[in-house]
Amino acid sequence: MPQTNPFHSLVPRKLTDSELARSIRLNIEAELDAINLYAAHLDATDNEEAKAILRHVMDEEREHAALFWQLIARLDPEQAQHDREASQKYRLITTGASHEEVEAVSEGGAEAAEVELPKRLTVGSLRK
Amino acid sequence: MPQTNPFHSLVPRKLTDSELARSIRLNIEAELDAINLYAAHLDATDNEEAKAILRHVMDEEREHAALFWQLIARLDPEQAQHDREASQKYRLITTGASHEEVEAVSEGGAEAAEVELPKRLTVGSLRK
Amino acid sequence: MPQTNPFHSLVPRKLTDSELARSIRLNIEAELDAINLYAAHLDATDNEEAKAILRHVMDEEREHAALFWQLIARLDPEQAQHDREASQKYRLITTGASHEEVEAVSEGGAEAAEVELPKRLTVGSLRK
Amino acid sequence: MPQTNPFHSLVPRKLTDSELARSIRLNIEAELDAINLYAAHLDATDNEEAKAILRHVMDEEREHAALFWQLIARLDPEQAQHDREASQKYRLITTGASHEEVEAVSEGGAEAAEVELPKRLTVGSLRK
Amino acid sequence: MPQTNPFHSLVPRKLTDSELARSIRLNIEAELDAINLYAAHLDATDNEEAKAILRHVMDEEREHAALFWQLIARLDPEQAQHDREASQKYRLITTGASHEEVEAVSEGGAEAAEVELPKRLTVGSLRK
Amino acid sequence: MPQTNPFHSLVPRKLTDSELARSIRLNIEAELDAINLYAAHLDATDNEEAKAILRHVMDEEREHAALFWQLIARLDPEQAQHDREASQKYRLITTGASHEEVEAVSEGGAEAAEVELPKRLTVGSLRK
Amino acid sequence: MPQTNPFHSLVPRKLTDSELARSIRLNIEAELDAINLYAAHLDATDNEEAKAILRHVMDEEREHAALFWQLIARLDPEQAQHDREASQKYRLITTGASHEEVEAVSEGGAEAAEVELPKRLTVGSLRK
Amino acid sequence: MPQTNPFHSLVPRKLTDSELARSIRLNIEAELDAINLYAAHLDATDNEEAKAILRHVMDEEREHAALFWQLIARLDPEQAQHDREASQKYRLITTGASHEEVEAVSEGGAEAAEVELPKRLTVGSLRK
Amino acid sequence: MPQTNPFHSLVPRKLTDSELARSIRLNIEAELDAINLYAAHLDATDNEEAKAILRHVMDEEREHAALFWQLIARLDPEQAQHDREASQKYRLITTGASHEEVEAVSEGGAEAAEVELPKRLTVGSLRK
Amino acid sequence: MPQTNPFHSLVPRKLTDSELARSIRLNIEAELDAINLYAAHLDATDNEEAKAILRHVMDEEREHAALFWQLIARLDPEQAQHDREASQKYRLITTGASHEEVEAVSEGGAEAAEVELPKRLTVGSLRK
Repeated sequence: MPQTNPFHSLVPRKLTDSELARSIRLNIEAELDAINLYAAHLDATDNEEAKAILRHVMDEEREHAALFWQLIARLDPEQAQHDREASQKYRLITTGASHEEVEAVSEGGAEAAEVELPKRLTVGSLRK
Repeated sequence: MPQTNPFHSLVPRKLTDSELARSIRLNIEAELDAINLYAAHLDATDNEEAKAILRHVMDEEREHAALFWQLIARLDPEQAQHDREASQKYRLITTGASHEEVEAVSEGGAEAAEVELPKRLTVGSLRK
Repeated sequence: MPQTNPFHSLVPRKLTDSELARSIRLNIEAELDAINLYAAHLDATDNEEAKAILRHVMDEEREHAALFWQLIARLDPEQAQHDREASQKYRLITTGASHEEVEAVSEGGAEAAEVELPKRLTVGSLRK
Repeated sequence: MPQTNPFHSLVPRKLTDSELARSIRLNIEAELDAINLYAAHLDATDNEEAKAILRHVMDEEREHAALFWQLIARLDPEQAQHDREASQKYRLITTGASHEEVEAVSEGGAEAAEVELPKRLTVGSLRK
Repeated sequence: MPQTNPFHSLVPRKLTDSELARSIRLNIEAELDAINLYAAHLDATDNEEAKAILRHVMDEEREHAALFWQLIARLDPEQAQHDREASQKYRLITTGASHEEVEAVSEGGAEAAEVELPKRLTVGSLRK
Repeated sequence: MPQTNPFHSLVPRKLTDSELARSIRLNIEAELDAINLYAAHLDATDNEEAKAILRHVMDEEREHAALFWQLIARLDPEQAQHDREASQKYRLITTGASHEEVEAVSEGGAEAAEVELPKRLTVGSLRK
Repeated sequence: MPQTNPFHSLVPRKLTDSELARSIRLNIEAELDAINLYAAHLDATDNEEAKAILRHVMDEEREHAALFWQLIARLDPEQAQHDREASQKYRLITTGASHEEVEAVSEGGAEAAEVELPKRLTVGSLRK
Repeated sequence: MPQTNPFHSLVPRKLTDSELARSIRLNIEAELDAINLYAAHLDATDNEEAKAILRHVMDEEREHAALFWQLIARLDPEQAQHDREASQKYRLITTGASHEEVEAVSEGGAEAAEVELPKRLTVGSLRK
Repeated sequence: MPQTNPFHSLVPRKLTDSELARSIRLNIEAELDAINLYAAHLDATDNEEAKAILRHVMDEEREHAALFWQLIARLDPEQAQHDREASQKYRLITTGASHEEVEAVSEGGAEAAEVELPKRLTVGSLRK
Repeated sequence: MPQTNPFHSLVPRKLTDSELARSIRLNIEAELDAINLYAAHLDATDNEEAKAILRHVMDEEREHAALFWQLIARLDPEQAQHDREASQKYRLITTGASHEEVEAVSEGGAEAAEVELPKRLTVGSLRK
């Protein structure tokens, strides 16, 4: 017999850096869940006004997900490193490369990736 | 021992009008939950970059809640009627009026409200 | 193996203003969920007595949702601003306006909206 | 990793009488949960406007609970019988009567109760 | 990935009066959920022994719901007042009366109800 | 963003014997959860009327748990066999016997237990 | 947007006797849920190896449920009393006896039951 | 009284493209939840072996999140477009730019972003 | 307002091989959750009888987890391969080896592991 | 009306050894749930790129489950003992051995198992 918790969002104390990162990851989950929710509703209705509003709002949730993803890259540099390598690994995996070839990206491949995506690193340079 | 449902958002069939309205009410709930989530995080951190992103995103969730509310007013005219009367009823309740005085707004008060908020009704006129 | 929490609604301490706003948003969610629940039952029965009661109660939940929405507008002025702009933005989105045209409402459009909906602002004037 | 079900309130088919009674019992649960939610918020804030709205809405949820309780009495006559006996049993239990004395109310006591609460039975007579 | 909380029912402190009322409302929810559970099982089996036990137990859950309802009436006099008015309001709503006619019961109608249901008030008289 | 399922107790079809047994096990869980709920409330209040009602109701939930346990013994004879052996195994475990000594109860010990608890077996003889 | 609680099983403090009993009742629920889970899987597969393992494990869960039931009888003597009376009450209910006849077991019937199930009481005698 | 669903991951039918994208978004949520879980455990223990394993596994979950993010970019080109703009928008928001300046990125800024991140687009070119 | 699903374990159809493997993984989760539950209770009580029973039952849940793990190794040979390599990888990770050194186990190391753990493979040979 | 807990992963204090073991068991549950999730999606799509990524990620989750299982064996030696005996018990159960034959493995059979799986014990030898 579950029931509504009237006090679910009380702030217990300031967050540590690691806890803040966990909070932002949770926010990405919330945005992705909202995108899924609105996408499902879009598939299930022909009401044009509803579709227009759903499309508009859903597009901004995509933007939010992307912005929180940037914030995570700032708070969790190891995630940022994986983001830089992901495009190359993705290509390798989907074209049948072995696990070892994929893992090799982390070393030399990462340098190559940094060369390929220099502007993306401006996020990192903001940190200074 | 709950577990993730891998297929939670499959579309079973097109929605009826009444089901579409229920879907949009659910979406408002999702937006309000997101606002609460980000507001709680804002209260709990001093990280300025995180606060700037949270404030920006949270403001757009407020806009989404307002837009879905408009959509509900379109799909559920009785809700729209209550929206028109709410400001007056709110004033009465918070200044100590009796239940009956509050309910009286629904009749004569409603007509007055329609006079007071003519532009708001353009939403209704879009329907034709 | 979840189980009932016997003490889910104990008051831990007085709420801050921001926490009170989060509580009221939660209450709107509760009202919308109730509306959805009763609307679904109305669709699923032909029992006339049950339908009469469901319709009566559901109508008052709509009023509650509208009243809590007013209260949020009082506690969260940025939400109130979005409420004032929503009708115009809704019309733009559903008639195919670009994202930028929609965002433009927040500035000059907002002033126009304020002109259009003067009486609605009495909520704000109560604050003085 | 739970997630929002976008289609939680689709109507599968018309309800049987027994299923309708179960639906209304669920609605009473929803009303009681809302009362608990608002009562907890009332205890936790000193904001006078919020308290006025919460008190007003909470009072109507009490009325809804009472109305749905009447409807259950109509749909489930055995519940109505227990309602008629409950006041007497309550008095016996809280004054230390034995289990058998309490159970005895169901027979002779029930007849007495029917005599005592004749108007209440007009609900039943509406059924004809 | 939810998981069982091994310590879900530890008593944190004595309850306030308002918290006790909320606990009893929760108990009514638990009883109604049990009634629904057993009613559904009754509909779904032809095993006569199982049906006999389910009917016996379910009948006592109905009695429990009625007893807790009495207790709430003791702890929350405003609920008791709504209980007294509910039968009359129910009749009005189901025979097409207006909202205002229904609300009028709270005043003069309540007095009439008190006349109609004198024995029911013995619960109240126990309070002295 | 979970939400209430308005149609959670619709009967899909008649239960198989194995499914009926699973339903009754679920009912025992519901009864035990209710006992825990009321026991926790008893520990947390000094209100004498509330305690009297809680004690009365909680005692009947214990009876329900015992009755459903009997029903399971009827529907699942292997459970009945374990019930007959449990008292002896319990004594062995709590006095430091080895796993093998405990398991030995299932054979010769079980026969002894059947001799020791002849009347209990009348449940089984009812089946003929 | 629920999420995994990383710290759901931290021990807050030693349990009181009443809290220990509640914990063991919860454990019975966990065992019954596991039995239901494995029973359902057994019904749904023809893989013989899987069926052999499921049957073996499920049988030991039945034993666990029986052992925890014994432990509850030790911690909660009122439950033990109901266990002793349950077989007789079960027979009465399933052969159409009245509520009063069933309740009568608690007195004289209990003595009879104690005569019928003498060895079962060794659990009680361990207590001295 | 929730309970384990024994059949939560049965495949109902092949997914549509839009449903597949929703499934992958759900998977990102699962990966982020796992990262949060392991990060919390890392913060809460000093056991060096446990920390080494947690760090190793957590790092691979980060890689999985990044890979699924790439897959979403493939399945949902509008998300990919937002990913390309996010770094620039992030910089604008955290340095105090207005909403309109941020939205302006979507047009001219997007073209610039495409120029800045040419290699990233190889993901798109894989589609041919 | 969640509620108990009376029909949560109905068998929809026979499972595919892949679905059976998913069911057994779920069962391992259930066993691990039970171990956690009983371990937490053991930490929280000094009642010796309760501790003896909890220790006995918990030990058998460990055995169940190990047996279901064997069954998964049978149903999912790729899991079995990882099980064979895990001990060596664990040693490498906890002694500071690089990701690549760890991944290298999958190739040559795996062959070595097969040599090292010949008897373990009898599980596989049972399949013929 | 459940809602997102913004602060679900705050670290309350350092874990005890027993609590750490419970945390790692929970992590195994998370990995198994992820495997089930990805396996279900693999069964439900024909999109080759998605399948390649899902297969790659799922394989690493299997490795994680195996590594956490090793860690549990380190933290909970009684689990390690059951792991060593499980292969032999599995063979006995699936070839029809009696419960007693299975339990006999724990003694002499365990020694045999240790002989059979010498390299596996290197985990144990790391402890010195």
